[in-house]
Amino acid sequence: MGLTKTKEFNKFFSNLVKGVTTLKYSKVPEATIRRLSRYSRCLEEMEQLGENVVSSAQLANRCKVNPAQVRKDLAYFGEFGIRGVGYYVKDLFHDIRRILGLNKEWKMAVIGMGNLGSALLSYKDFLKQHYKIVAAFDINPPKVIGRVSEKLGKPVEVLHINRIKEVAKERKIEIGLIATPPSEAQSVANLLIEAEVRGILNFAPAQIMVPEGFMVKDVFFTTILDNLAYLLSNN
Amino acid sequence: MGLTKTKEFNKFFSNLVKGVTTLKYSKVPEATIRRLSRYSRCLEEMEQLGENVVSSAQLANRCKVNPAQVRKDLAYFGEFGIRGVGYYVKDLFHDIRRILGLNKEWKMAVIGMGNLGSALLSYKDFLKQHYKIVAAFDINPPKVIGRVSEKLGKPVEVLHINRIKEVAKERKIEIGLIATPPSEAQSVANLLIEAEVRGILNFAPAQIMVPEGFMVKDVFFTTILDNLAYLLSNN
Repeated sequence: MGLTKTKEFNKFFSNLVKGVTTLKYSKVPEATIRRLSRYSRCLEEMEQLGENVVSSAQLANRCKVNPAQVRKDLAYFGEFGIRGVGYYVKDLFHDIRRILGLNKEWKMAVIGMGNLGSALLSYKDFLKQHYKIVAAFDINPPKVIGRVSEKLGKPVEVLHINRIKEVAKERKIEIGLIATPPSEAQSVANLLIEAEVRGILNFAPAQIMVPEGFMVKDVFFTTILDNLAYLLSNN
Repeated sequence: MGLTKTKEFNKFFSNLVKGVTTLKYSKVPEATIRRLSRYSRCLEEMEQLGENVVSSAQLANRCKVNPAQVRKDLAYFGEFGIRGVGYYVKDLFHDIRRILGLNKEWKMAVIGMGNLGSALLSYKDFLKQHYKIVAAFDINPPKVIGRVSEKLGKPVEVLHINRIKEVAKERKIEIGLIATPPSEAQSVANLLIEAEVRGILNFAPAQIMVPEGFMVKDVFFTTILDNLAYLLSNN
């Protein structure tokens, strides 16, 4: 009885401490989110291979991070797995998908139908991960419809950019992918903001300003190259 | 005299401490390198606007980070600027470029001439930042030469992939951009490794393994989208 009470107290105390910890870490590092995305990919592969249970060491090995990192990353979001056993592959996969907000389909639009915009339209990995491009825009749409539909099983009609607001509401678009020249990026972002498209993935090498409540992630190829150049110069 | 000696001692001691600090921080965080790249862009703009001196607060404001972060990032690499004055725009720009390894031109090859590969070939920001694409490869080159040369002032001839090794040595290629389907990414990486191309920027959504001394940076659009989805779900 005494032991049980102590156990209960320990559990209560541990949850209390965890609660405080959760508050303290309410801002989860971006690197953790990036790794969660990687874990989710690895777990998906493992599930497809018919694996049921995985230890943090095995998961870490597969994802090329260290085991302590896996445990630390997951600890931000609560308690997963069973001590001495590991994680159930399927459960952890679904938990991580839920944490990342990927337990739903995200509807996206691509703006700018040059080579990069066309590449995004035919990027198979998006659809595999529940990101669905439901609209495409350009300032000169007739020029590109042919090329795009030729690349896709199910063609997406390219519309004139002045229809963004109307179409975004109609098709419930939540994320806009900006693939225009840098000089046009802010004005396209403004159109997306007006259309209440809250998320922007910006491929145009230009800083974009958005009001509170809107989110921008930049994909600047040159910045990533700079990182690589640094590593090559210093290793 | 006593004061001078104290000053000298202080300088000596400060350099000693700095030496130790440098050793301690020999592994500079990736986020710092990413921000350095951003500072360099901001400083370049400022130089073009004719600005001579900038405080860390002004630089931070322009780059959208906090001033303490700017100072902390730079401190990894030594002492910059003058207390009470700030940084000389031109000097700091060149110092950061040197740190990043960007005081030279990097020669690159693109492998895979689909929409994404073509987009990379005509990506103006690379050339602006001293990254020069000097070769392009595909398994089916004749198909694409036309499209690529049409997009560029100076066309890059697309060669058959089996010529990578020979051409990489001839043209001193140091970075390979993989824009193939994911199923081909590792075998292309193997060719690059054989050709002693030490840096790989991998756009194919597949994990690539390289031996020690080689560097891979992944540009996985879906991982960045996952990050955006998380922010949209939790804000």
